[in-house]
Amino acid sequence: MIFGAILAGGIGKRMDKHNIPKQFIDLCGKPIIIHTIERMLAVKEFDHIFIAIHSDYKDYLKNILSQYGLDNKHEIIIINGGRERIDSVQNVVDAAYELNKNLDDVIVLHDAVRPFISKTVLINSIATASKYGACVAVIPVVDTIYFYNSEEIVDCPERAKLCNGQAPDSFKLGILKNSIEQLTEDERKIITGTAQICRSKGYSVKTIPGDYQNIKITTENDLIFAESILKKRGFK
Amino acid sequence: MIFGAILAGGIGKRMDKHNIPKQFIDLCGKPIIIHTIERMLAVKEFDHIFIAIHSDYKDYLKNILSQYGLDNKHEIIIINGGRERIDSVQNVVDAAYELNKNLDDVIVLHDAVRPFISKTVLINSIATASKYGACVAVIPVVDTIYFYNSEEIVDCPERAKLCNGQAPDSFKLGILKNSIEQLTEDERKIITGTAQICRSKGYSVKTIPGDYQNIKITTENDLIFAESILKKRGFK
Repeated sequence: MIFGAILAGGIGKRMDKHNIPKQFIDLCGKPIIIHTIERMLAVKEFDHIFIAIHSDYKDYLKNILSQYGLDNKHEIIIINGGRERIDSVQNVVDAAYELNKNLDDVIVLHDAVRPFISKTVLINSIATASKYGACVAVIPVVDTIYFYNSEEIVDCPERAKLCNGQAPDSFKLGILKNSIEQLTEDERKIITGTAQICRSKGYSVKTIPGDYQNIKITTENDLIFAESILKKRGFK
Repeated sequence: MIFGAILAGGIGKRMDKHNIPKQFIDLCGKPIIIHTIERMLAVKEFDHIFIAIHSDYKDYLKNILSQYGLDNKHEIIIINGGRERIDSVQNVVDAAYELNKNLDDVIVLHDAVRPFISKTVLINSIATASKYGACVAVIPVVDTIYFYNSEEIVDCPERAKLCNGQAPDSFKLGILKNSIEQLTEDERKIITGTAQICRSKGYSVKTIPGDYQNIKITTENDLIFAESILKKRGFK
């Protein structure tokens, strides 16, 4: 089976003015997460699409799914999100394994707040994980990146060797499950990308080309940019 | 003395649709570089502001300076930009040294295509370089960054230890001059940030807080975002 998963466990409300978690903020007349769900649903390869959400927002999510005519989609399975991203990933992996008990199944992890994911990237991600076991969508780094401490530059890595990890990250279930089980508590705390989980346990993680418009909406600036992308595309 | 410098040597015309170097593209009715120059002129600490520009575009620049009433600004000194950013930096350093022959003078290097630089950051940058010798404006990295080769992830650095180097980079003239003189040909090729030049020669480079809106306009996406920032600010 091929599983999609939308990680929407966040309950942070830090973005100015908005009093709801980021994935529910309106983007041109629709909550961000609805844009994301629609993009995932457009990929027919997915047998099921998990949405991992904090239990406090389950009913809220069900309401908006209904509002946008998505409550009858049999692909969608709502599960509990965890406290941190890694906890949500673990819940998704457990749910997928529970459903089909096949470690060769592929799971495609995507962020609720990346609503511009393209069908091309999703399909490439599925194909690459099926073939190689693990992959992540990346784009070359544009800015100069430094290692720093609170006061000064510590090291200057060569830009051409760096990439920005986007989402989706896709994996054969067995590889991701095995890697998560091996994580120490300390590792769980510092890991920010899902690909890191498998890489840190020695698995090879392939890169596939992401997309500059596949942005993660985490600041008010991102939201402004997201609106302008949609308007340029003629979204009403 | 305190020198400002706007690096505008680029002649790349790769941005879709526009047939002029990026710094001359229109941003809400004004070339990007004019926005940048106006921001620099607003900082009264600068004794002189160099603009390093390719010789083919000198007259073009003079024309637009005149068009926007900036041709009579005595602070502005137009000099030759080099083939690469590092060559422009070197020309600016040489010009500044030639003018005042004081290695304790401070030079503030900024990108022509970062038109949203704030007075606060510029003034902080001048003060920090005056006190410590070298500094760069940075913001924490938001995305997960990986080391990669053409096919797969090679290493996963901890995100909290990484920052995005923006501009300005500011230096005491002696430190920058000395560092540039020591660069090998290979180093000149791979260096992307000015702070790297001094760091690679063993000088300490302090970090100061940058600004998420201090973006570098290098893609069509950036231009869309820049327009939306200006519109939100009520720019006509």
